[in-house]
Amino acid sequence: MSRRNIQLDEQNKLRHFITVEGLKRQMLVDILDTAENFLGLGARKTKKVPLLRGKTVANLFFEPSTRTRSTFELAAQRLSADILSMDIKTSATSKGESLLDMLQNLEAMGVDMFVVRHGSSGAARFIAEHVAPHVSVINAGDGCHSHPTQGMLDMFTIRKEKGEFAPLTVAIVGDILHSRVARSQIHALTTLGVTEVRVVAPRTLIPADVATLGVHVHHEMESGIKNADVIIMLRLQKERMQGGFLPSEAEYFKRYGLSEARLKLAKPDVTVMHPGPINRGVEIASNVADGEHSVILQQVTNGIAIRMAVMSMTLGRPEIEMGEPK
Amino acid sequence: MSRRNIQLDEQNKLRHFITVEGLKRQMLVDILDTAENFLGLGARKTKKVPLLRGKTVANLFFEPSTRTRSTFELAAQRLSADILSMDIKTSATSKGESLLDMLQNLEAMGVDMFVVRHGSSGAARFIAEHVAPHVSVINAGDGCHSHPTQGMLDMFTIRKEKGEFAPLTVAIVGDILHSRVARSQIHALTTLGVTEVRVVAPRTLIPADVATLGVHVHHEMESGIKNADVIIMLRLQKERMQGGFLPSEAEYFKRYGLSEARLKLAKPDVTVMHPGPINRGVEIASNVADGEHSVILQQVTNGIAIRMAVMSMTLGRPEIEMGEPK
Amino acid sequence: MSRRNIQLDEQNKLRHFITVEGLKRQMLVDILDTAENFLGLGARKTKKVPLLRGKTVANLFFEPSTRTRSTFELAAQRLSADILSMDIKTSATSKGESLLDMLQNLEAMGVDMFVVRHGSSGAARFIAEHVAPHVSVINAGDGCHSHPTQGMLDMFTIRKEKGEFAPLTVAIVGDILHSRVARSQIHALTTLGVTEVRVVAPRTLIPADVATLGVHVHHEMESGIKNADVIIMLRLQKERMQGGFLPSEAEYFKRYGLSEARLKLAKPDVTVMHPGPINRGVEIASNVADGEHSVILQQVTNGIAIRMAVMSMTLGRPEIEMGEPK
Repeated sequence: MSRRNIQLDEQNKLRHFITVEGLKRQMLVDILDTAENFLGLGARKTKKVPLLRGKTVANLFFEPSTRTRSTFELAAQRLSADILSMDIKTSATSKGESLLDMLQNLEAMGVDMFVVRHGSSGAARFIAEHVAPHVSVINAGDGCHSHPTQGMLDMFTIRKEKGEFAPLTVAIVGDILHSRVARSQIHALTTLGVTEVRVVAPRTLIPADVATLGVHVHHEMESGIKNADVIIMLRLQKERMQGGFLPSEAEYFKRYGLSEARLKLAKPDVTVMHPGPINRGVEIASNVADGEHSVILQQVTNGIAIRMAVMSMTLGRPEIEMGEPK
Repeated sequence: MSRRNIQLDEQNKLRHFITVEGLKRQMLVDILDTAENFLGLGARKTKKVPLLRGKTVANLFFEPSTRTRSTFELAAQRLSADILSMDIKTSATSKGESLLDMLQNLEAMGVDMFVVRHGSSGAARFIAEHVAPHVSVINAGDGCHSHPTQGMLDMFTIRKEKGEFAPLTVAIVGDILHSRVARSQIHALTTLGVTEVRVVAPRTLIPADVATLGVHVHHEMESGIKNADVIIMLRLQKERMQGGFLPSEAEYFKRYGLSEARLKLAKPDVTVMHPGPINRGVEIASNVADGEHSVILQQVTNGIAIRMAVMSMTLGRPEIEMGEPK
Repeated sequence: MSRRNIQLDEQNKLRHFITVEGLKRQMLVDILDTAENFLGLGARKTKKVPLLRGKTVANLFFEPSTRTRSTFELAAQRLSADILSMDIKTSATSKGESLLDMLQNLEAMGVDMFVVRHGSSGAARFIAEHVAPHVSVINAGDGCHSHPTQGMLDMFTIRKEKGEFAPLTVAIVGDILHSRVARSQIHALTTLGVTEVRVVAPRTLIPADVATLGVHVHHEMESGIKNADVIIMLRLQKERMQGGFLPSEAEYFKRYGLSEARLKLAKPDVTVMHPGPINRGVEIASNVADGEHSVILQQVTNGIAIRMAVMSMTLGRPEIEMGEPK
């Protein structure tokens, strides 16, 4: 028997959500189906259900992220959870408390879930390996490794647009090397069985292990997006320019930006996606971002539904046993 | 037919609350009457109603303001809304995201209302012009333009003290030129039909368009507050001193401060108001601020009721149609 | 008749919780018994009761404290209170508003309880002396004076471990001089009638009035913890080193650190406590902190229950009369 996936409990239900990698197709489909229910909720007048009432969710954001943090906060509020938001810079870690001591203290306060954003790859997994049995961990982005709720909200958006994954060709364009979003998307797309996943980037921004990911590599935008059903543009991290990975913004747009002219190379009903926030005129032209093929804002809406789905799936398991006080 | 007021919906109900200017007398009375109900709530043991349960209110404070922000947060909590408080300096705008992109993203997250404080006049209106049909905007102060909930809480306070507006003479004393509070008060007092509105300030602090506001201008405190039923003292913005608009604090108090001696010039039952926070001994003597004529703390209490009123009136409209998810 | 204890109301029920000093034994027992109920709640799936629904709790933290603040926030959320967290540095006090004006304004907004952390001894009492009759104040730590909820959670922990107070010998080790925690513990232990309270510290860290506290003073660790039933290690404030109060960290551990070897001097079933966050290897060895005698994490869990107890006892009194709006 293979080593148990840390993300699953004894009944193979989702306990943590650290990475898409290693999860079975059916689990991903379950997440998408659960999110479908929550999407309908967002359109009702009362966007609130009592599923996590009396549970406590702690946001541990070691890296600032207004957007991701806001969506997790809203998801938790709409599930009726209590929320503890920790400003890590001002917390006791500055008094020399170790991360593990901080986690144990928060658990002792009755925290049921940690939503973790961290600059180091593997941080969320490390935390998941050390929490008490009834506590769940959601990875809200760790270094260059994984951003699984972003990956799944993108799958959700694709399914809503296209219905099926099998026939699709999906092109991911941009800084693949440093993108936790791209890694999560690639694992999800492969698991869900799309025909072809392409990554499109200059040689300096393609990871060395790209061959193991089961994707097709393109260095030219034109071949990369040709006949694509879905184009996912990544956000250009401007700080990469200084690193010599990239030419100027104007040069980048000329080679890899998604313009209206280039968009014609893709399928006529191509779907254009971007995790946001967008750099208008850098990786994507404004009229493409706002155009009829773009589903960028739907991605944001879907992100709330996906986060509610994984939060309720992990914390709502009937078999959770609470720690008894001594 | 005249151009529709952006603040009203198709049924002429309040959709946004950006400015008192242009609203009809009956609308202002409706706001005051609604606030009356919420004031009673504040005195009950359980200061909470489910009117906005499942709605999401986003606080967008581009200017810091603990007091106004706290009152809006409390008002939203007591209406059972979910609250998203954005620290704008640390938000994605620092990643170069435009204001409109940020708004669209927040709408895509299911935000139903923006409470906006901004240093630029017109900011709240600009936002109101760009939000989705089911979203409401409340102006929590924009530049020198308008602070309509402050204006209305002052009207509420006056009505509770005096019963009727028609017979009143109201004097507003201080930096009229830079005061969004004064502008909102003047529009409200005029619309509600008080006999006489006076503004009392040195020439440097009177706006050039004062004649169009329908007020009487006084440069001397003595004539300005003589026989007044209500005196509203404005907060002295100390940073104006550097601008050459004003002499020293001591000199200001000597000419325009509200002392006990001067208060005798007004009607015997004069009501003394101030939007807070007060500068004791600068624009108002301590014993006047704490004295029997002062209703400064009642203004604060009334502010919660007024904010609950406009939040519930704008978001609680039965005809709101939610955006349907794609 | 003696002067009324400011912490009690007319019916001798707990109105404020400022200090353990001066409270009768039965009141301390009532707090412990009430906390017992809330501890069970923390183990349930839904850690929430509606006891303070519709009440507003304002956190006034003039000193930063992530841990204490988090426990009060969680306690208030689990009692269903609304919470207003004030960042005092960015609040209106920076506009020159006095503390009393700020308090009066918050009361006017309908705040029912202030949870106060302040660097000056006496701050919480000062605030309690100035609030309206229906408002309660909880001291979350004032200078070197008192930290009564910490003291009571420690008593709660001791009672759960030992059952009875009367037969116990309790040793408190560390910087007694600057410790508000130690003062609260000493008053509580004495009131609850333990056999012997010892304080163990270098001469420089013993308060001058120690004789009046009814404790035994030890300057050597070995005699101090000999045959103790409970050892409470205090956190070493590293900034004291600069003050000349203390030698190096290594030297401190050598003289006053709790190592496994030293632990053998105490009773075989000794309970080891620490208010946290711990400095591993400074005042306590890692294996002792994590060892079988340690109840450090239970103290954290118990802290939520104690805070829920005092919040519900003070705010839940049936005889509270609300201020009526004018």
